[in-house]
Amino acid sequence: MDGADLHALAARLYPIPRSITGEGVRRSLAILAERIALEVREIPTGTPIFDWTVPREWRLREAHITAPDGRRIADAAGHNLQLLNYSAPFRGRVGLEELRRHLFTLPDQPDLIPYRTSYYKEQWGFCLPHRLVETLPEGGYEVLVDTELFAGSLSIGELALAGESDDEVLVSTHCCHPSLANDNLSGLVVAMEVAARLAARPQRRLSYRFLFLPGTIGAIAWLATNGEKRARIRHALVIAGLGAPGAFHYKTSRSGDAPIDREVARALARIGEPLAIEPFVPFGYDERQYNSPGIGLEAGCFSRIPYGRYPEYHTSADNLDFIRPETLAGSVAALTAIVDGLERRDCFRNLAPECEPQLGRRGLYRLIGGDDAGRERELATLWMLNLGDGTHSLEDIAERSGIALERLREATAALVAADLLAPV
Amino acid sequence: MDGADLHALAARLYPIPRSITGEGVRRSLAILAERIALEVREIPTGTPIFDWTVPREWRLREAHITAPDGRRIADAAGHNLQLLNYSAPFRGRVGLEELRRHLFTLPDQPDLIPYRTSYYKEQWGFCLPHRLVETLPEGGYEVLVDTELFAGSLSIGELALAGESDDEVLVSTHCCHPSLANDNLSGLVVAMEVAARLAARPQRRLSYRFLFLPGTIGAIAWLATNGEKRARIRHALVIAGLGAPGAFHYKTSRSGDAPIDREVARALARIGEPLAIEPFVPFGYDERQYNSPGIGLEAGCFSRIPYGRYPEYHTSADNLDFIRPETLAGSVAALTAIVDGLERRDCFRNLAPECEPQLGRRGLYRLIGGDDAGRERELATLWMLNLGDGTHSLEDIAERSGIALERLREATAALVAADLLAPV
Amino acid sequence: MDGADLHALAARLYPIPRSITGEGVRRSLAILAERIALEVREIPTGTPIFDWTVPREWRLREAHITAPDGRRIADAAGHNLQLLNYSAPFRGRVGLEELRRHLFTLPDQPDLIPYRTSYYKEQWGFCLPHRLVETLPEGGYEVLVDTELFAGSLSIGELALAGESDDEVLVSTHCCHPSLANDNLSGLVVAMEVAARLAARPQRRLSYRFLFLPGTIGAIAWLATNGEKRARIRHALVIAGLGAPGAFHYKTSRSGDAPIDREVARALARIGEPLAIEPFVPFGYDERQYNSPGIGLEAGCFSRIPYGRYPEYHTSADNLDFIRPETLAGSVAALTAIVDGLERRDCFRNLAPECEPQLGRRGLYRLIGGDDAGRERELATLWMLNLGDGTHSLEDIAERSGIALERLREATAALVAADLLAPV
Repeated sequence: MDGADLHALAARLYPIPRSITGEGVRRSLAILAERIALEVREIPTGTPIFDWTVPREWRLREAHITAPDGRRIADAAGHNLQLLNYSAPFRGRVGLEELRRHLFTLPDQPDLIPYRTSYYKEQWGFCLPHRLVETLPEGGYEVLVDTELFAGSLSIGELALAGESDDEVLVSTHCCHPSLANDNLSGLVVAMEVAARLAARPQRRLSYRFLFLPGTIGAIAWLATNGEKRARIRHALVIAGLGAPGAFHYKTSRSGDAPIDREVARALARIGEPLAIEPFVPFGYDERQYNSPGIGLEAGCFSRIPYGRYPEYHTSADNLDFIRPETLAGSVAALTAIVDGLERRDCFRNLAPECEPQLGRRGLYRLIGGDDAGRERELATLWMLNLGDGTHSLEDIAERSGIALERLREATAALVAADLLAPV
Repeated sequence: MDGADLHALAARLYPIPRSITGEGVRRSLAILAERIALEVREIPTGTPIFDWTVPREWRLREAHITAPDGRRIADAAGHNLQLLNYSAPFRGRVGLEELRRHLFTLPDQPDLIPYRTSYYKEQWGFCLPHRLVETLPEGGYEVLVDTELFAGSLSIGELALAGESDDEVLVSTHCCHPSLANDNLSGLVVAMEVAARLAARPQRRLSYRFLFLPGTIGAIAWLATNGEKRARIRHALVIAGLGAPGAFHYKTSRSGDAPIDREVARALARIGEPLAIEPFVPFGYDERQYNSPGIGLEAGCFSRIPYGRYPEYHTSADNLDFIRPETLAGSVAALTAIVDGLERRDCFRNLAPECEPQLGRRGLYRLIGGDDAGRERELATLWMLNLGDGTHSLEDIAERSGIALERLREATAALVAADLLAPV
Repeated sequence: MDGADLHALAARLYPIPRSITGEGVRRSLAILAERIALEVREIPTGTPIFDWTVPREWRLREAHITAPDGRRIADAAGHNLQLLNYSAPFRGRVGLEELRRHLFTLPDQPDLIPYRTSYYKEQWGFCLPHRLVETLPEGGYEVLVDTELFAGSLSIGELALAGESDDEVLVSTHCCHPSLANDNLSGLVVAMEVAARLAARPQRRLSYRFLFLPGTIGAIAWLATNGEKRARIRHALVIAGLGAPGAFHYKTSRSGDAPIDREVARALARIGEPLAIEPFVPFGYDERQYNSPGIGLEAGCFSRIPYGRYPEYHTSADNLDFIRPETLAGSVAALTAIVDGLERRDCFRNLAPECEPQLGRRGLYRLIGGDDAGRERELATLWMLNLGDGTHSLEDIAERSGIALERLREATAALVAADLLAPV
């Protein structure tokens, strides 16, 4: 899919009333599953997951407010954000004063609808433009929040792509936000597209696991119920906010020195995309969970404008106009470059590590001493052998030696063909 | 006690003829014991202590020189420094030339009496102003050094304050110098006062051990006879030279990277006192012993003007005028701040380390997503959980996160109350 | 031998037709053996040595080309370099076009003869000035390459000098180049002279092993057949290119942080010689073999103008005029300084590590406290005791303490005499 296709897909996903549980998530995952072989895992309400419990499933039938003059001033069917996400059911007539206690607005952005949730306190509410709320007349308001919280399950979309190695790359993105395009329909479609392209590859060096999770609770649920899979993860990346224009940003893992940290930087440099690298903070997306001290996955977070740093963030202005086809396509390219870097992250072992092997008889060395041609190729060969101790990646060797990666790859290929070097 | 009280106490201690052993030390410790529950440990002469042996006890009855004209040109009763400290007994009439071989002066500071000792070579001597010695007439001088060196003991003042933890803080200061005010009556009274205030606290997190020791030999004697106590010491600090005006100086531990090194720097910054930090050298006060390779306590040394770097050092000019009440009080405040820092040096362990715990149901999290209030408090909470791996102190976390310590403390208190974090 | 003697020795060695095997190497080693007790080890053709096999021995009887006009345009007897080194035998009459396929020249340096070898591809060839080759007339050329490749052996010159310790210093230099003065007759005579002087010393702290090896194949052969000796090597240094004027250069070991790296820098600084330090690259002389991942000796390479960076390199201009007596002498002095540094590389252990030992009763301390004399000597004593934990060399302590090495040596001697410190 190209950028326009991804934007169109985001447009299909946009009106679906997603929350951390419920049909909205399932319908969204089903749409992604049209392109990738997503498995949807259901974890039942009440399942203990570390310090948490899988919450009740939320069902939304309809929700609206009718003003004293009969105008329908809020209607979830009109805009998902108008209903406080995960609202408890309510039906009744309330005066303006009481109604106001259930309304959320953005006084500084009076024409926008805020995005608010109440997952862990049972209440009902609506989100409206501040300008509208200011003009509401006194009188009785008919409120209907026809929702239901019931023992169901939490849904997680998971795609595992087996590779030659059991070592896994985790790409995680959240799928719980309703009509918000950059945060995070962009993450859903970009992750889906990269997964689709990876799935189509005839072979993969590494295994991959793409997770489409309700934010926080979904990551916790997955981590709590997949200890064995966690052990295979070698690189972890959270992605989000990849549809609105803006330079790429990367928040490092907790240590700041994980391979994923180096690989993201290298990948973006390789494709000529500027990248702002920021230190880890335990705030943001699900990298919070992955980097927690008891989990210890060194996950980075890859975005364009980072979490919360744009006025459209968590408002109705984060809409389909805010994300762009070409931006989505660029994000797919960048994430693909990162994946390619991980795929190419090669550590080698010199199979004849005692002294230099005899390169000449294998055609890997100038046959007449003193011939200047091939000097750089030879140097690449010698560096690969010298640092081929299983701990240096090709890029590490490139950085230390100052030799172009391409030249090192050529040397490596020749050495591997000659049974002098083997991938680790 | 305030600064004036401490100065008055120093004045009481000033005329007592202290040495590394003997009644002078005991009388001085007895005065300190009026305020703190000092235990005096006697270690008998001849006790082997590592490479050393506890020396004989020194008793001074009287010591003076009478000139040919009948003038008493030196008298220990007039000024302790006039007698070479630890002088062997002597009685006799000597000519000027021989007398001069037993006299110590400071030609560059001709009006001052130097402080000299002869602990390990048996000899007698006197210390006098150079100007006086230059004018001595020829003739016979009556010398009386009525001292005694006998099998007795070496006295150490020790105050142990038990805290909630067996982990100990060692504060060590030397008590052997006679009429020298900055070096080290200031150390004695400052250590005593901080000990008294700590003793008066209803509770202490850490245990404390204050040692008032004869320099070098006392530290060696204590270390050699207290192997078990040594093992409990987590932080060690030698203090001296805290009465004369001058900016604070800190000489680091041997590694330069011990917790005490960070805590001294933090404490002084906290109270707004300039601090010069200098690298470890194996010279100075008893940090030499604590930092020796076979002992391995990482002890810093806290002073105002450092060891030996002032003209009054080890002369009669290091007198009661040289030290100031307000300076003593400031030193008590600084050492108290260091102690407070150590008391507050908290390392925590996240008790729900796998992913983030559910903060919302514990009232530790914004209940309505998107509410901006409390963002910093939450960030503090998340940092404490994320770095709550038992190895980071609160201050370490503050330095890494950039969040104010107070905010982190609030977050910590809430997390501890919620059984999510526990002090290590 | 002084510089003039060494230059004269190089002149004796210059005309000998050396190669990686054969009588040329043996005759050269025999000349070196006139001054040092060199043992010549013969490793038979066909011996497997890691990835390699010891090659056939090469015998050169005569080799020349006679032009159509009867001129002898090339003759190995006239200049060794004229024959492609290790040329296979050939006899016949060839036309100019075919002859040219066997000629090697330097178009950019048209008056010089290049140095070329063909060890691992069986072929014959000659090396000539480009200017000469350009003027060759058409016609038949009589070529005689009366050489022989036969099952013989590879010769290695080895001198082992036992010292007090079994810990060894390896000095390695290549001996296979024929009439090339800087690369590497200079290495041969400098290594020989330093070995001779070391052998003449009444005692050595460390053991030494000097290797005179055919480049690459010789080092590989020695390493492959001397596993036990390898294990004793503590410091390794390859030397070459020490006869032509130019500032000293040092290429570090693979880690860049081996003791040899520090010692070379210190030695050159000590004798006031500028030194350019360059990072390791797996190219150059036999440090390539020593630093290979399966060997793991941290070898540096010591030269004047480094490998390949001068126009005379591997040409007939690298002749006896290019190297200078005073330069050879300076190189002997520099290598001797390095050896001296290694000899002096002392790590000590404090035998009374718990607190300071009683220096006073051993005469190692001011007997009268306060005497300023001897302060620096005492400080040196205290540093030696404090860092005498077996891991710090004297120079390490000098760098940390800022105290002159000589002062530390005095202190060390006194401490060792007093049984307070022992060499490790």
